Amino acid sequence: MVDYIGVERVQELVTRIGPARFIEALATEIEHDYRRWREFEKSPRHATHSTVGVIELMPTSDGRLYSFKYVNGHPKNTAAGLLTVTAFGVLSDVETGYPLLLSEMTFTTALRTAAMSALAARRMARPDSRVMALIGNGAQSEFQAIAFNHMLGIRELRLYDTDSRATLKLERNLLKLGLRDLRVVRCSSVAEAVTGADIVTTVTADKCNAVILTPAMIQPGMHINAVGGDCPGKTELHADILRRPDARVIVEFAPQCRIEGEIQQLEEWFPVTELSDVLTGKAVARASAEEVTVFDSVGFALTDFSALRYLHRLNRDQRVAPAGIDLVPELDDPKDLFGGLTHQIADRPLQSPVNWSSVAADRPRAVDIRRAADSRLGS
Amino acid sequence: MVDYIGVERVQELVTRIGPARFIEALATEIEHDYRRWREFEKSPRHATHSTVGVIELMPTSDGRLYSFKYVNGHPKNTAAGLLTVTAFGVLSDVETGYPLLLSEMTFTTALRTAAMSALAARRMARPDSRVMALIGNGAQSEFQAIAFNHMLGIRELRLYDTDSRATLKLERNLLKLGLRDLRVVRCSSVAEAVTGADIVTTVTADKCNAVILTPAMIQPGMHINAVGGDCPGKTELHADILRRPDARVIVEFAPQCRIEGEIQQLEEWFPVTELSDVLTGKAVARASAEEVTVFDSVGFALTDFSALRYLHRLNRDQRVAPAGIDLVPELDDPKDLFGGLTHQIADRPLQSPVNWSSVAADRPRAVDIRRAADSRLGS
Repeated sequence: MVDYIGVERVQELVTRIGPARFIEALATEIEHDYRRWREFEKSPRHATHSTVGVIELMPTSDGRLYSFKYVNGHPKNTAAGLLTVTAFGVLSDVETGYPLLLSEMTFTTALRTAAMSALAARRMARPDSRVMALIGNGAQSEFQAIAFNHMLGIRELRLYDTDSRATLKLERNLLKLGLRDLRVVRCSSVAEAVTGADIVTTVTADKCNAVILTPAMIQPGMHINAVGGDCPGKTELHADILRRPDARVIVEFAPQCRIEGEIQQLEEWFPVTELSDVLTGKAVARASAEEVTVFDSVGFALTDFSALRYLHRLNRDQRVAPAGIDLVPELDDPKDLFGGLTHQIADRPLQSPVNWSSVAADRPRAVDIRRAADSRLGS
Repeated sequence: MVDYIGVERVQELVTRIGPARFIEALATEIEHDYRRWREFEKSPRHATHSTVGVIELMPTSDGRLYSFKYVNGHPKNTAAGLLTVTAFGVLSDVETGYPLLLSEMTFTTALRTAAMSALAARRMARPDSRVMALIGNGAQSEFQAIAFNHMLGIRELRLYDTDSRATLKLERNLLKLGLRDLRVVRCSSVAEAVTGADIVTTVTADKCNAVILTPAMIQPGMHINAVGGDCPGKTELHADILRRPDARVIVEFAPQCRIEGEIQQLEEWFPVTELSDVLTGKAVARASAEEVTVFDSVGFALTDFSALRYLHRLNRDQRVAPAGIDLVPELDDPKDLFGGLTHQIADRPLQSPVNWSSVAADRPRAVDIRRAADSRLGS
């Protein structure tokens, strides 16, 4: 059986630990992996574009474990009551090629993106940053708010979205969380939200070259956490912000970011720094309190690798066997694949279809997903 | 819920229809899709190699549906009682990016490979072919035997494997099937097996440049169905067989085959024909009874696309709802991802982990996989 973490299970795991602590623990895992950057096989993700969205595959491996994520991006989905981004991922054993874990990653992607943003901002933002503008108040916004409140010490959030209901939803969720020391300010424009902010986080979703932030909005010392521009033709920043002489642009993986990130607007020789170099001390993220820093984040396979490994451990770290699905056959003789497929029909001739109900009655009813009793988990 | 076809379910579906008819129906689907070759977005698969094997992702799309397959190849796995090849795949809706089906593909890959081999051979082999040599009697061999017996009219199979137990296993399985009009001959060498064969199928597994077939073994008029050479450094034929002046080499997708197929041994301008051109009548597969034809098959994403769509329809074509897994969240408000994740904890403060058992007790126990009673399926 392959371990399985579905929507319900990830809800349980995050509930158990709490989102803030989950994100912080995930950030630790991610930092650990980005510090051993060179051990990973890296490639830009495989993207299949259509007029309404994109479907991507994001594989990576460190030679011991392999992971990939499937993720779509369809901005118009919300109008039909569907999610813009859904995702799932698999963690595998390189030695055998066998999958170890299949997990939902719609929730997990939001959690890991926030963890990554906060991890980068801890190195890039001014240490005295207390005010963050949050532009785009959709599916990702609560995760960013929690991560920056918990990991960076953000005490004021300035919200803006073209859809005021999204802002109300974010406010309501933040209120429910009862985060102490967090003031939430609803703003009526991007300019108003950004005024006085130490950090500006952009998490908008339109699949176009938008200009969410203009050069006039940017003040010396700001850190810009640009999350929403993440595929060709989808950007959020005016290119002149990136070109400021006092600006420093940090990315996850340069070859992918030049295709998908804000820097897709610039020449391919535009200088950027990879986050791994910052984390290992090879590069400086911020040289002074006056510099403008930009984390041009598009999402990279390695972050998902860390998230899947973390989830796998968390899920296994129980006294009962984790849930599993019968995705891979378990055969007595691995060379007898055919025997494994057809053991039910034994000596019946193949050319005539067997009587279905009699075959079914012969076999014991298998349960594909074994779910441990929830009540035993917390004891 | 995402439709789920596990090992048990595919066993049921194949048992119901019978392997021979399943393979034939699959070949019809594959032919249909290869005839509309230009509608598909195609790329060589994404391969992650290690010293012991390879893990691959194989995506494709026709603009309406998207599919990918995960497949590994680890020849040494069998020594540890594991399968050389395991696989699973996903079929998605391009309009929304949502996955529709997750399916096992370990069995399905063997079925679709045999369907593809027979489909190609129907165009490439001499119509009066009755004798096939089957070199490599491992996991793939029964499927090839059934496909060629059923779809090509093969009446004599000449078996050889370096592992004589594999040959005995194949013989035993073929005996059980009770295929009429099929004579099975055990041979003590490749040369003996190939002697007098109209078709030679090679399905060996070693990850090396092997020479299973030498030029001296090849007779005019033979069709060679070369299945086992399917990644860089893994070939089965002596290059001079491909270079014969009377030989015609047909491939699935030339850019991928030049990396992975038998033709990786040749110059990159070596002329090959894509099967789609044969199926649409643009190219000839065999011009005379004396030509040697080689199907240099490495496995292509489009074949898996056809297989997944066929399985999806077969699985849905029941009177009861198919089994599903909770891989993608279903939210009341798609912009409220966080609310969907944490609805269980409601107003509890996040920073302190909640009491696990009390949360679990509040909720109804969900069943991740809904499985219909088998007995209702056949009525």
